[in-house]
Amino acid sequence: MSGRRLGRGVAVVGAGMTKFGTFPGRATRDLFVDAFQEMRRSVDRGIDPADIEALYVGNYSSDLFEQQGHTAPIMADWVGLAPRPATRIEDACASSGVAFREGLIAVASGLYDMVLVGGIEKMSDLPTEQVTDTLATAGDAIYEIPAGFTFPGFYAAMATSYMDRYGATPETFMHVGIKNHDNGARNPKAQFGARIADIMASKKARAEAKGRPVPQWADEIEFLRDERANPTIAWPMRLFDCSPISDGAAALLLVAEDLAPSFSDRPLHIIGSGQASDVALHDRSDLTSIRAAKLAGDQAFAMAGLGPRDVDVAEVHDCFTIAEIIATEDLGFFPVGEGGKAVEDGRTALDGSQPVNTSGGLKSKGHPVGASGVGQVVEIWKQLRGEAGERQVADARIGLTHNVGGTGQTCVVHIFARRF
Amino acid sequence: MSGRRLGRGVAVVGAGMTKFGTFPGRATRDLFVDAFQEMRRSVDRGIDPADIEALYVGNYSSDLFEQQGHTAPIMADWVGLAPRPATRIEDACASSGVAFREGLIAVASGLYDMVLVGGIEKMSDLPTEQVTDTLATAGDAIYEIPAGFTFPGFYAAMATSYMDRYGATPETFMHVGIKNHDNGARNPKAQFGARIADIMASKKARAEAKGRPVPQWADEIEFLRDERANPTIAWPMRLFDCSPISDGAAALLLVAEDLAPSFSDRPLHIIGSGQASDVALHDRSDLTSIRAAKLAGDQAFAMAGLGPRDVDVAEVHDCFTIAEIIATEDLGFFPVGEGGKAVEDGRTALDGSQPVNTSGGLKSKGHPVGASGVGQVVEIWKQLRGEAGERQVADARIGLTHNVGGTGQTCVVHIFARRF
Repeated sequence: MSGRRLGRGVAVVGAGMTKFGTFPGRATRDLFVDAFQEMRRSVDRGIDPADIEALYVGNYSSDLFEQQGHTAPIMADWVGLAPRPATRIEDACASSGVAFREGLIAVASGLYDMVLVGGIEKMSDLPTEQVTDTLATAGDAIYEIPAGFTFPGFYAAMATSYMDRYGATPETFMHVGIKNHDNGARNPKAQFGARIADIMASKKARAEAKGRPVPQWADEIEFLRDERANPTIAWPMRLFDCSPISDGAAALLLVAEDLAPSFSDRPLHIIGSGQASDVALHDRSDLTSIRAAKLAGDQAFAMAGLGPRDVDVAEVHDCFTIAEIIATEDLGFFPVGEGGKAVEDGRTALDGSQPVNTSGGLKSKGHPVGASGVGQVVEIWKQLRGEAGERQVADARIGLTHNVGGTGQTCVVHIFARRF
Repeated sequence: MSGRRLGRGVAVVGAGMTKFGTFPGRATRDLFVDAFQEMRRSVDRGIDPADIEALYVGNYSSDLFEQQGHTAPIMADWVGLAPRPATRIEDACASSGVAFREGLIAVASGLYDMVLVGGIEKMSDLPTEQVTDTLATAGDAIYEIPAGFTFPGFYAAMATSYMDRYGATPETFMHVGIKNHDNGARNPKAQFGARIADIMASKKARAEAKGRPVPQWADEIEFLRDERANPTIAWPMRLFDCSPISDGAAALLLVAEDLAPSFSDRPLHIIGSGQASDVALHDRSDLTSIRAAKLAGDQAFAMAGLGPRDVDVAEVHDCFTIAEIIATEDLGFFPVGEGGKAVEDGRTALDGSQPVNTSGGLKSKGHPVGASGVGQVVEIWKQLRGEAGERQVADARIGLTHNVGGTGQTCVVHIFARRF
């Protein structure tokens, strides 16, 4: 399948998302309406929603989070799309990345000319322990979960394996969090608008105001090393190594490429798509790389006729800080074992040679799991159109998204180009 | 979109399923392996599983039934498909009908030449009340479920509305159950292998053996009218009006039409596909028809260039007996309001003018919800290939499947032709 092309080209002509965060009293349908309306406003030449022929929506588990199954037709109804076909895609945290691929395939097949792709998740209604248990169902319920694994534990296993093999330290991972919070502070849609330096300063100020001893952290790394400020969740993954519990929704409008100029002055062309699966974590011989990510990346690059050096801006799946480092190696941005060094050296920063997670990533922007994949494309939309404000990467022309489900049993990669 | 064609033709070249029933100690993955192996054996000229490029699997809620999310890559792994892309589709009880459509679209797009489509559900591990609650999440969790609705209640509302408008009686619905049990008794894969006449006879025999008064039911209708034999679940829906709680899996192999002769001497050509969504039941003005079914049927017939009179054999979604009657009207087999009369007159029986649910339907074959849509196609595969044994419809050339999600918020219809 490598290098195989789709029946016809497809472009993104609209993109919108809610702020990611916690929104008590708002259901997924409410959030999706907001994302849809922002998407609609983003279409340069406007659209008539009656022209939208189908909805693909990624959602991990409204079943467990909201006791609501069969979400797709509800989402279609609430944005006025009924009786159009409405299909839910579930591949854990890669649900909406895969929904995006299904929307792409459906337009490429000739069946539809215009498709809405959504991502939704409402996680914050449950107590934290239940959220953790719900997320754990993305592991293997027979071979892994009864052994006590939860997601911080899975990624901690990858992190210790990576440290052992490549000499990384817990501080290596902290650099990912610092960078992503720096970026998220420039993204009004991010759940966390504060840099880690800001959080440190405000903790100092609060201690001072209350007349308590003021902690003498010299820098962010020293702050993050402090167990009271940054408690260990599953060593070496600490609080600031973990993406948060989030609510959110995102929406994209896909059209056949030849129709794109009717809707957009600056469409995004989808030039590469790849998807792969893998066995569960307990069954793998190597925890320092995600095979499905490498394969999905290879497929997408082959379809695009490009390589990692061509990518100007990338959104990768940093559900935990270790995941971002592994992703940058799996995608070929850095040689194997050098992803940690790269982030320490600032190469993935906004002004680095290979900017990664300019949005703040899942770590800072938030991770409403079923919405994250489409949320990544929203960031690439902004970057390639030059609308990313304070976090704009100069003259970004090629963008990439990398969305992982579970521990890497699913990965989906897309590559986008601007041609204006 | 009406009449729009896909980029290229697609055919089914293999089909398999487990028996539907209750299988303690077997997980969905075990059932799927069995369905896959039977599918593999069904391919006339054999296949190398390494040639399968992707998996689409329909599943309603392993999340709630088995506390297992992210099922698609597990299914791919257990049939040896990893690292191929694996995507789960969820649209309630139409999950695998929609997964089939996604597989069709993906091959039509040119991205894949050969795709595996599966359907899985393991419902019997939970107590019945929890199964009912889990199924209820396919309604609207905000506007319907808190009002006390469960699925027998939803379909009872449709049934009373239908009785009121068209003069049907509870006995009208009983005829659907009698017919489908008659058919299921001829299907070795059916959960219930007994005709209702057999069940009645065995209850009489048991009473006699125990020295109790022997009930004097004159015929099946009298038996079904007896509250002790056939208790009311949600009037007018009684026990024998409801499909059972089932476990099961089914699998199909789809290939690009031009490749079909390499694999099969008698492939099934997919000539029509339609899908639509609708608002939740509480928001509809008419409960005697399912709009999404009519629209999906219209689309499929338009694509196929055929009409209802051309269909030799149809599998329709009889989750409750009323649903089959409505389906036969929505699809145009009978005029509105005459579907009840048609079943009373035997027109949908195996030897009738329009055989419906020759497999036994969901009522008798069983309804492992996420597997039912693909299970329907397995029956059409057998009928069109002349392999349906005692339930064979003579010279069946055109088959149809009609798969409903929830109360009809999703419906998907496919039409198949044999050309050998």
